[in-house]
Amino acid sequence: MAKSVKGGAAAPTDWSDEAGAIGRRARAAARQLASVSTNTKNAALAAMAAALRSSADAILKENAADIEAGKKAGLSAALLDRLALSRDRIEKMACSQEEIAQLRDPVGEIIEGYTRPNGLQIQRVRVPLGVILAIYESRPNVTSDVAALCLKSGNAAVLRGGKESLRSNLAVHKTLAEAAAAQGIPADAIQMIDNPDRDLLAALLREDRNIDVVIPRGGEDLIRAVAEQSTIPVIKHYKGVCHVYVDELADLDMAEAICFNAKVQRAATCNAMETMLVHKNVAPRFLPRICRRLSEAGVEIRGDDRTRRLWPQATAATEDDWYAEYLDLVLAVRVVDDIQDAIDHIARYGSSHTDAIVSQDLKHVQQFVRDVDSSSVMVNTSTRFSDGGEYGLGAEVGISTDKLHARGPMGLRDLTTYKWVVYGSGQLRT
Amino acid sequence: MAKSVKGGAAAPTDWSDEAGAIGRRARAAARQLASVSTNTKNAALAAMAAALRSSADAILKENAADIEAGKKAGLSAALLDRLALSRDRIEKMACSQEEIAQLRDPVGEIIEGYTRPNGLQIQRVRVPLGVILAIYESRPNVTSDVAALCLKSGNAAVLRGGKESLRSNLAVHKTLAEAAAAQGIPADAIQMIDNPDRDLLAALLREDRNIDVVIPRGGEDLIRAVAEQSTIPVIKHYKGVCHVYVDELADLDMAEAICFNAKVQRAATCNAMETMLVHKNVAPRFLPRICRRLSEAGVEIRGDDRTRRLWPQATAATEDDWYAEYLDLVLAVRVVDDIQDAIDHIARYGSSHTDAIVSQDLKHVQQFVRDVDSSSVMVNTSTRFSDGGEYGLGAEVGISTDKLHARGPMGLRDLTTYKWVVYGSGQLRT
Repeated sequence: MAKSVKGGAAAPTDWSDEAGAIGRRARAAARQLASVSTNTKNAALAAMAAALRSSADAILKENAADIEAGKKAGLSAALLDRLALSRDRIEKMACSQEEIAQLRDPVGEIIEGYTRPNGLQIQRVRVPLGVILAIYESRPNVTSDVAALCLKSGNAAVLRGGKESLRSNLAVHKTLAEAAAAQGIPADAIQMIDNPDRDLLAALLREDRNIDVVIPRGGEDLIRAVAEQSTIPVIKHYKGVCHVYVDELADLDMAEAICFNAKVQRAATCNAMETMLVHKNVAPRFLPRICRRLSEAGVEIRGDDRTRRLWPQATAATEDDWYAEYLDLVLAVRVVDDIQDAIDHIARYGSSHTDAIVSQDLKHVQQFVRDVDSSSVMVNTSTRFSDGGEYGLGAEVGISTDKLHARGPMGLRDLTTYKWVVYGSGQLRT
Repeated sequence: MAKSVKGGAAAPTDWSDEAGAIGRRARAAARQLASVSTNTKNAALAAMAAALRSSADAILKENAADIEAGKKAGLSAALLDRLALSRDRIEKMACSQEEIAQLRDPVGEIIEGYTRPNGLQIQRVRVPLGVILAIYESRPNVTSDVAALCLKSGNAAVLRGGKESLRSNLAVHKTLAEAAAAQGIPADAIQMIDNPDRDLLAALLREDRNIDVVIPRGGEDLIRAVAEQSTIPVIKHYKGVCHVYVDELADLDMAEAICFNAKVQRAATCNAMETMLVHKNVAPRFLPRICRRLSEAGVEIRGDDRTRRLWPQATAATEDDWYAEYLDLVLAVRVVDDIQDAIDHIARYGSSHTDAIVSQDLKHVQQFVRDVDSSSVMVNTSTRFSDGGEYGLGAEVGISTDKLHARGPMGLRDLTTYKWVVYGSGQLRT
């Protein structure tokens, strides 16, 4: 990073100053943090877990105030549920800190190392990204999860939660920051933005000299707004329009179990199936049985013409349905001519999140794996497995459908970059 | 990528349509290219090299027209030299195609693979990025180098060169594209923008649905303008303000040789030394000898007060000098109190490109390597080694001072991403 476009025309000057100060404090903390030992970071995480437990009363009190204000403001029951903390939820937050302490520290790993013919020893060494700005909505547990993930990976965190959970977030943050500082972590390593003004956020999103990456978590609107405004690189996924393609040569019992699991097991997640594609040759046998089972589980089916001939209870799917991320018990269904038709559908309407094929045919599986350009491609299993925990990454930072840096479920490793370190003994370039 | 902000308010509608068509053609070609075999890609590269040689006359004729127009337009001698082709330069372009054919194909590499307790087999597989928009200035050889690198890594290329080299670039492109197509490469795998209108470029920079990454090569102004306008991720470096720090415990003969090499061996490159930092305890012995040798080689020295007391011929460095990328025989010199002072100077004024320490002290070397946050950190060798070829990466795509995705010299591998491929046998999420 060079001298930069700090505080562009879009942000009012007062907020640029405030954002600049936040960025500089974070950068200074990040420089210190890069050399803090793993033992110290783990001790801080243990202290943070203990502090969450011992401060539960104070946190719950602030949370109750947020909930009360939210009720007055007319927040939906779903939003209030996401906002609400309990002793149980705080215990889970504390456990999560302890689990992150158990993960291997990615910083300092030598990714590769070799010696050149002239004797130069070349290493790529894993280092923290630096400063991470996390932007999220109502859940206060994100505050503690992201703080812990950033700390373990040696990054300074700037946390910006939703307005409706501000008092809860500040209580959680105060608890964590004090516990971390007592273990020798720089005070500005975990900063929480206490001003919910959107212009301050806009100014922070232009602090590209001192903030290295922005990670927004939340709905598509939030993420789009952040990506549009930011001059800092953003790691994101907009939505998960996940497909399961049931091939002509599928084991139909397996296909039924996978499709049911992918749709029904937890419909509100980004890795749930939203569109089912069925090869025309198996549709007459497969569609009635899977649609019956899904309907019995309360799933609304929206089908194309060929689907509706085989399952007349389906409503007619519109063009919008193929793009839709329902996050609910609704499923778009289409009968396709062949595997190429399925691949083309996914390329046109998909979100590059997670897409699956059910087939026993090696050639079809190879074609699907090669030609479907999604961050996760599944063979004979449920899209619901697309998850950092299920992939064995430990705590999940998020999911990326971008192509640069990290793709798919992101773990602690994806909060790092590398530097080249070259050891010589006086070599000169000729 | 989901449905996208195709053609935003900033770009006029007509150019969005044109840019959209270019992007869609590139995306379609990229989808085909992802499954073209390495043998076919290598055969195409060989044919492209042969075609460059056999079309040299036609290319030189178009280049002569560019040169003539450039002279009339009053281009500088340096610009005209960069623009000029010759039989020798065309031969080098052809050789470069052949060298790229020799490189190992990065596509399809299994980066990691493991089996989860539930039997899911998880792989991270290297795949092309997709569509790359390369933006560059006058050198026509960039057209052939980037086309070859993109083809080998399975990416569709959209090439946008400088206006002054348009006829040359179109001639090179026609030669390459025809040769590649005859070997079965999709016709739109290598597109050259034949309209130099900046509004078309602006519209292309918003084609984030169909273009995956932008790689600008050229001066800082070009790169900043691209980064400001683009809604597509940009891989870039603005400039190289490279430092050599001569430690209190340096071997001063080695330090002299390294500093001289880093400044003088090729001053116009981004990895040449621009600022030399010298520990105060060795400055009286070291500064006069290195300054004398540099001065004899024609280097202008701009020093701080302590430097000027030891080498009075130096002019006074201003604050701007510490930020400057001279790309010329000019050097800023500062005497520092200790290694921390040097590290702080680099953090404040550096460009995160390449910075070196000369020292025999293990603790100082470890501190410098840990605390200097640059894409390349050198120990006891010349910053001039910061280069893809010198690191053994083969042909260099460019240098990144960003932290996401690729950092430092980029090779063919950095034109790829990965996808997660998960093989199951009917596993369901519980």
